Amino acid sequence: MTRRTKYLLDESDLPTQWYNIVPDLPEPPPPPLHPGTREPVTPADLAPLFPAALIEQEVSTDRHIDIPAEVLDVYRLWRPSPLYRAHRLEAALNTPARIYYKYEGGSPAGSHKPNTAVPQAFYNAQEGITRLTTETGAGQWGSALAFAGAVFGLDCEVWQVRASYDQKPYRRLMMETYGATVHPSPSDRTAAGRAVLADHPDSPGSLGIAISEAVEVAAADPGARYALGSVLNHVLLHQTVIGEEALRQFELAGDRPDLIIGCTGGGSNFAGLTFPFLREKLAGRGTPVIRAVEPAACPSLTRGVYAYDFGDTAGLTPLLKMHTLGHDFIPDPIHAGGLRYHGMSPLLSHIYHLGLIEAVAIGQSECFAAGVRFARTEGILPAPEPTHALAACIREALRCKETGEEKVILTALCGHAHLDLPAYGRYLAGEVVDHDLPEAAIQDALARLP
Amino acid sequence: MTRRTKYLLDESDLPTQWYNIVPDLPEPPPPPLHPGTREPVTPADLAPLFPAALIEQEVSTDRHIDIPAEVLDVYRLWRPSPLYRAHRLEAALNTPARIYYKYEGGSPAGSHKPNTAVPQAFYNAQEGITRLTTETGAGQWGSALAFAGAVFGLDCEVWQVRASYDQKPYRRLMMETYGATVHPSPSDRTAAGRAVLADHPDSPGSLGIAISEAVEVAAADPGARYALGSVLNHVLLHQTVIGEEALRQFELAGDRPDLIIGCTGGGSNFAGLTFPFLREKLAGRGTPVIRAVEPAACPSLTRGVYAYDFGDTAGLTPLLKMHTLGHDFIPDPIHAGGLRYHGMSPLLSHIYHLGLIEAVAIGQSECFAAGVRFARTEGILPAPEPTHALAACIREALRCKETGEEKVILTALCGHAHLDLPAYGRYLAGEVVDHDLPEAAIQDALARLP
Repeated sequence: MTRRTKYLLDESDLPTQWYNIVPDLPEPPPPPLHPGTREPVTPADLAPLFPAALIEQEVSTDRHIDIPAEVLDVYRLWRPSPLYRAHRLEAALNTPARIYYKYEGGSPAGSHKPNTAVPQAFYNAQEGITRLTTETGAGQWGSALAFAGAVFGLDCEVWQVRASYDQKPYRRLMMETYGATVHPSPSDRTAAGRAVLADHPDSPGSLGIAISEAVEVAAADPGARYALGSVLNHVLLHQTVIGEEALRQFELAGDRPDLIIGCTGGGSNFAGLTFPFLREKLAGRGTPVIRAVEPAACPSLTRGVYAYDFGDTAGLTPLLKMHTLGHDFIPDPIHAGGLRYHGMSPLLSHIYHLGLIEAVAIGQSECFAAGVRFARTEGILPAPEPTHALAACIREALRCKETGEEKVILTALCGHAHLDLPAYGRYLAGEVVDHDLPEAAIQDALARLP
Repeated sequence: MTRRTKYLLDESDLPTQWYNIVPDLPEPPPPPLHPGTREPVTPADLAPLFPAALIEQEVSTDRHIDIPAEVLDVYRLWRPSPLYRAHRLEAALNTPARIYYKYEGGSPAGSHKPNTAVPQAFYNAQEGITRLTTETGAGQWGSALAFAGAVFGLDCEVWQVRASYDQKPYRRLMMETYGATVHPSPSDRTAAGRAVLADHPDSPGSLGIAISEAVEVAAADPGARYALGSVLNHVLLHQTVIGEEALRQFELAGDRPDLIIGCTGGGSNFAGLTFPFLREKLAGRGTPVIRAVEPAACPSLTRGVYAYDFGDTAGLTPLLKMHTLGHDFIPDPIHAGGLRYHGMSPLLSHIYHLGLIEAVAIGQSECFAAGVRFARTEGILPAPEPTHALAACIREALRCKETGEEKVILTALCGHAHLDLPAYGRYLAGEVVDHDLPEAAIQDALARLP
């Protein structure tokens, strides 16, 4: 067989449906609850925040949902994304394992986030909404929504976690180039932000606080809606184009993965790649092990509890049954800003609870070492988030070197690091440290579960 | 015909030969001269700076040169690159023109530069060289060579123009992540650098000065060679993979360009796209107009003279017959650092002199406006350099709107702006100005031609 570096699909092979895993699970995921009544939330409860089409997708039990033609037209700017065989990394590791990576960094915003930003903007525009609000941490989600807003003519307003706003100005500049407005969070524009600033004028912010601000603003403006970049069912749904493409690309490669690895923050990138493979596994086609990798500084799956909790710090969202470290847990300032979220997607938490996937937590210095090794062999500079998956991948490849096993490993390379280069600079200067996370910090936050 | 957004080639369709335009020209280009004797330089003169394989390519009159298998293996990490049809830009402009762009920003370093960095590193490694020196302005070339050095195990040392070193730290971080060492230029590590610093301790540097430093260091170390990212024949040769792919992609599209537009700094990106089309035109297959776009602040083709001049400021290089603004002309600090070079590739200058291509100069504010328009429709953020080509492309598309002409325009999108976002920030803040270039400044520098 000819040595191939990448497996491409023609744009005519772009998936035309998203895959909803819910009907294929042995039991349905627990519903979100209204924080006042503790009854399941109704579509009407969500209407001030999301357009009807997305609410429908959020609760859908249809196995497949058609991707609108207008969304496919925009997807074609960068999709189908390539599946790579990491020949050079394999050679550098001297491993018999075969390593593949599905690369999402070729999108306009440089990550997997536009896969859901584009349909979210489309459905909002279709229902007459003119303004979107959202939060962003490192900025991958904010820049994806800014791009999607530009495409569908929506005003986009982003609350960016203060620490990232200050440390990663390039991301803000990207959002502004796409036409978005960016505020540092906490801001004085919302009651939630002012409350935090009153107690902590120098607050570096958190994703939970920024969500509170964006939700508050959207709820108060009938022409506005809120958009979330991970966690929710409809977001994970949109990301399944990644896994659907990868399945077809493995057919082209004449191979099949034994182990699938992805990083998890809110869970959407991981779910997007793995759910279609999990469907096949549940149907008896293939037996891949599916492994989530989270940062040791924010280990919601491996050290959190599975309980109902708020999605945001101020407690404005419905209660979500999820693996959580507590809604007011503030993770240490690791460089993988996209993984600094106190909770985990309820759907993914449920699947973990069912024992269908496994999880591991890795400290950031090992992850950066993996990122540098990857850059110097495969060329692509991986964002700090997917270096977590790469670190787990390299661990496994080195294990195979010991055992001689020709394991096939597939990993999700969900974005590039072009706008995260100061983090690599810190690593190369020996300034990146692993954060020892005391159990007491987690227990303290968990004591305040609603 | 189905509406298509991009035309992809399989990696098995990657060109296996570079195209050398020299034998197809009506007259050969004037040779480089030794500055002392004013006689044509010999391969022996160049041996301290370049490996034998590249010197051979520099003077070759073979029409096609095989691409080594090791180079093809690395090219496959990102090649063939996509040819896009800019449907969304066309719609926004309401033009009957059909606009295509060949995108090179998907390479590891984010521009067309790795197309030549990889073979240059390969040939050096093959001849036992262990260290490469080079200059870089904005940093696209330096990061490409840093990547190529990592792939072939060469130490890579880069002199980066001081102004860019200070203003664009992300580029330096990218080079360092690939393992390169970066010095701001002028530096105190070379006689050339120290001479500049003695007169101008705060010198912002220039490409000409940085070239002097890198050349001086390479010439003094038998294990080192110098690598240049544009201007020379072998560099333009390596870039012709761009145009060869584009020719095949136009066949797939069932279309052919009437007008081909590229930006010119040293000329390699422009030559890479256009030379294969020019070959076809010279052979009577197609009649595209071929237009170079240069910055109004550094207009070597449109306002320079065609004369023998040095390639660097200190006068260490051979004399090159080229369009030049004078080797000690320091262009105003426009944001397109890659276009701030006093000269133009001798081969491209010769072709311009023969009347085979045309040229136009555009001010940077119009270019940034084009870049923002492009980002908000097509998604990709164009580097400041190719916004010059996009500005010319939009001019033409709007002309077609007036005339109703369905002109087919092909433009070279040679890189993304992820590491140039501060320039967009300045533009959005209204701080980008066009530089009025007094004729006296050029005449002053030309008075010192060697």
